[in-house]
Amino acid sequence: MSNIVSVSRANPVVRSGHAQLSIILRETDKSTLQNQIFDQIRTMILNGQLRGDDPLPTTRELSAQLGVSRNTAVLAYERLISEGYIRTKPYVGTFVSPDLPDTAFLSSASAGPAATQLQTDAAAASSDEPIRDLRTHRLADPDRRRLAADFWVGRPDARTFPLKAWSQHIKGRLKSAGARLTSYSDPAGLLELRQAIAKHLAPARGVVCDADQIIIVGGCQDGFNLVGRLLVTPGSTAVVESPCYQGAAFVLESLGAKLHPVPIDRDGLDVSKLPHVKGALAYVTPSHQYPVGVTMSLQRRIELLSWATQYDAYIIEDDYDSDFRFVGSPLTALKGLDRNERVIYLGTFSKCMGPGLRLGYVVAPRRLVDSFRRMKMLMNNGQSWLEQAAMADFMSSGEFGRHLRRIRQLYRERRDALLGALKKHFGDCEVYGEQAGMHLVWKLPEGFPSAAEVEARGLAAGVGVCSLATGSALRFGDDDDGDRLLMLGFVALTEKEIEDGIARLAAALRG
Amino acid sequence: MSNIVSVSRANPVVRSGHAQLSIILRETDKSTLQNQIFDQIRTMILNGQLRGDDPLPTTRELSAQLGVSRNTAVLAYERLISEGYIRTKPYVGTFVSPDLPDTAFLSSASAGPAATQLQTDAAAASSDEPIRDLRTHRLADPDRRRLAADFWVGRPDARTFPLKAWSQHIKGRLKSAGARLTSYSDPAGLLELRQAIAKHLAPARGVVCDADQIIIVGGCQDGFNLVGRLLVTPGSTAVVESPCYQGAAFVLESLGAKLHPVPIDRDGLDVSKLPHVKGALAYVTPSHQYPVGVTMSLQRRIELLSWATQYDAYIIEDDYDSDFRFVGSPLTALKGLDRNERVIYLGTFSKCMGPGLRLGYVVAPRRLVDSFRRMKMLMNNGQSWLEQAAMADFMSSGEFGRHLRRIRQLYRERRDALLGALKKHFGDCEVYGEQAGMHLVWKLPEGFPSAAEVEARGLAAGVGVCSLATGSALRFGDDDDGDRLLMLGFVALTEKEIEDGIARLAAALRG
Repeated sequence: MSNIVSVSRANPVVRSGHAQLSIILRETDKSTLQNQIFDQIRTMILNGQLRGDDPLPTTRELSAQLGVSRNTAVLAYERLISEGYIRTKPYVGTFVSPDLPDTAFLSSASAGPAATQLQTDAAAASSDEPIRDLRTHRLADPDRRRLAADFWVGRPDARTFPLKAWSQHIKGRLKSAGARLTSYSDPAGLLELRQAIAKHLAPARGVVCDADQIIIVGGCQDGFNLVGRLLVTPGSTAVVESPCYQGAAFVLESLGAKLHPVPIDRDGLDVSKLPHVKGALAYVTPSHQYPVGVTMSLQRRIELLSWATQYDAYIIEDDYDSDFRFVGSPLTALKGLDRNERVIYLGTFSKCMGPGLRLGYVVAPRRLVDSFRRMKMLMNNGQSWLEQAAMADFMSSGEFGRHLRRIRQLYRERRDALLGALKKHFGDCEVYGEQAGMHLVWKLPEGFPSAAEVEARGLAAGVGVCSLATGSALRFGDDDDGDRLLMLGFVALTEKEIEDGIARLAAALRG
Repeated sequence: MSNIVSVSRANPVVRSGHAQLSIILRETDKSTLQNQIFDQIRTMILNGQLRGDDPLPTTRELSAQLGVSRNTAVLAYERLISEGYIRTKPYVGTFVSPDLPDTAFLSSASAGPAATQLQTDAAAASSDEPIRDLRTHRLADPDRRRLAADFWVGRPDARTFPLKAWSQHIKGRLKSAGARLTSYSDPAGLLELRQAIAKHLAPARGVVCDADQIIIVGGCQDGFNLVGRLLVTPGSTAVVESPCYQGAAFVLESLGAKLHPVPIDRDGLDVSKLPHVKGALAYVTPSHQYPVGVTMSLQRRIELLSWATQYDAYIIEDDYDSDFRFVGSPLTALKGLDRNERVIYLGTFSKCMGPGLRLGYVVAPRRLVDSFRRMKMLMNNGQSWLEQAAMADFMSSGEFGRHLRRIRQLYRERRDALLGALKKHFGDCEVYGEQAGMHLVWKLPEGFPSAAEVEARGLAAGVGVCSLATGSALRFGDDDDGDRLLMLGFVALTEKEIEDGIARLAAALRG
């Protein structure tokens, strides 16, 4: 046997049957010596530097020459044997396994992991692997944290999160968790939470449903996906409001739906423009249209339901921020008028609690309940237990109701502050959607720059305001007023921050 | 004005222009009086009992006749006005809105919510609405809780969950949650957790990757769905092991993939039977085949990777229970051999921690990272923050590693107890998959009843054992040994429970 174990980097030469194993051990390496030996011999085999039946040094030789304990060498060899790279012939020695297939194809890199990585990075950069062209919605840009005042849309105020009560429910549930953390549970969600939601929906939204019809989802997006997976077939029609929320439109599009935009006006969706096709899926935001903020009139609601019945369509009602209505009583949801079970109602805790919880719910038509439950199971086996349990407790204790009333009052004050500041700095403003929700829309007057330009000037002055695209809204064509609509979220800022922010924006636009 | 408000049930007659409003108030009703008035008038309008321009009683008349306060009547009318059902003409009176469309279509029910519900229930029962025929995997049956000993598969022991440490990390994170609960975060998951996973994977599984390549998912099922959404197109080929895990096969099938089963033997997937088609997606469990338990040989692994490279296929490596290896060192994952980036690695915390957490991860090939991240966003905007944060802390503190070592030892003892009990009661048994994982498979000897029959007799005697179908395994045809394979999960039972359970099973089979 004439194998030489070298510790220098200098000699990577491979000679048939007499491999000079160039093993380099690093004391500072995070890997154990045993693992370093294993990895380097394995790499030589996979690269073809060592081939079938090539002899290897004995463990005694290896330990002596590398200056490691005999045991270290034995353990490295045992692992190589157990993974099938090498084998021992009793009284003869240790050899590379003869039955490995030609490994040349594996040697896209000539050396260890570091080199592989570099090469793969380069490959990735130049790759144009054909993966479906996915359009995705816009989530908040982390850089916006540096703004003095950010009128970002759809984000609740972290300062109003009921952290104390929430923490207590989380702790309480953890104490008595039993097997709940280590079991699979109903993919439709925790029954207690579904019961609490059903109880909340009847008085709050006029939606009368059983807990059985409710599927807990990971926020609205998981809900859109769930509905889309069941009801979209490639080439089918998805009616969306024009403009609409990107997240819903893009996930339906990703499932193969053809988006069919229908314009909105002050009464919401223009139902006279609904397509006359069978089996469409319509995505609407009747309570507070996203992004423009208008409320769909009762007449339009009834006509929309009539259309759905006539054309066997289903309707997704995204009721994302309906907990906040500042004028009059809460409006009954579209689902509350739905006698023929054409409406799939989507609610979320992302707005009234926080998106970090990833909790929302779908109210499914009775005849689809089983399909929804099974699809949720196929998609992800349901949501995590702890947050569902804490939310159920938070609702059934009455704290959720009190929390809603408290923040509704607070958000109303902030809305008033925003309307006041706009009036003070810009005079009479044409505003939409101020009757409800977490943002309103200001239609910029003649003579003002476009919303995108106002946004850019605001950002330069440390004030975040959103053109439709920035506010995750999808437009279809340029022939509407979309360029002139500015979205202003008002719930995550104090009245003072709102006043200062609008003053700063006014200065930036004058400047 | 001659409107009469009646409180009896007896007179539902509607006369043109002179509606006799039959309003019934119930003191015990959970709804407020105001809401009851609102609901009942609204229902009469939607049912067509009240029509456009029909006059309504004044609020004074209504309050007097129903015996409610004037304010109650005013609030009910205000809500009806704000939702567009009625309107007031100053100095004339209050009328049903004239511009409501024909509402006859809505009157699928002739009365209030209760009747609607009954009618809808009946409709649901008789409905055969054509929704895609979905096959779903089997999750645990809650009735099994009553068993004396349940050798159910894939469920960790609730008693070994590190509840104390976990609770401390949850509490610690809640204390400093800041805006994390009220913000959207990276849909790919919490960076700290992805870093901790990358650090864990290199030594534990031989998978060298960056945190950037890791996408946190809601367990393996969410991971299968994520990969499928990106890589399955209708009619494309999904190679699966025969038999295989239902959850993976069914979700790929639901996305339109054509399942192509490839048989397994003692060395794992029979790679000589892989299809010669371009662009397939292959789902494999090389470390501990589900359900049979065999380990894929090195030679087969290399040939599988070679096939993927040659045919532009991607491979899903489901490494579900690889943390538990009882013989030799942990085997390097298939992903660790993957020089050409054809392998998508899936890991889960459902087995080593618990399915209630809904946490797992995908290691994506570099060229697909951006697509994976965007698809995860479209699907559900990522996982909830709190569990991710606690898991990151549990890993980076070193507790996760200690937890794994502790339960690996415990599970090994339980496996030994099961092997011992089988030998004691049934003699030498042909067993597969005992070298790793959370379950093993016993091939029932000649002369024994089928696995399904053994399962039935066991259940009758209070002992849960699983035929392949019960164990969420999917078979293709009956020409294999599947009828004779019995799955036995051993990690959620103590050694004593295991011994008693097998003794009971033996008695049931003798009896």
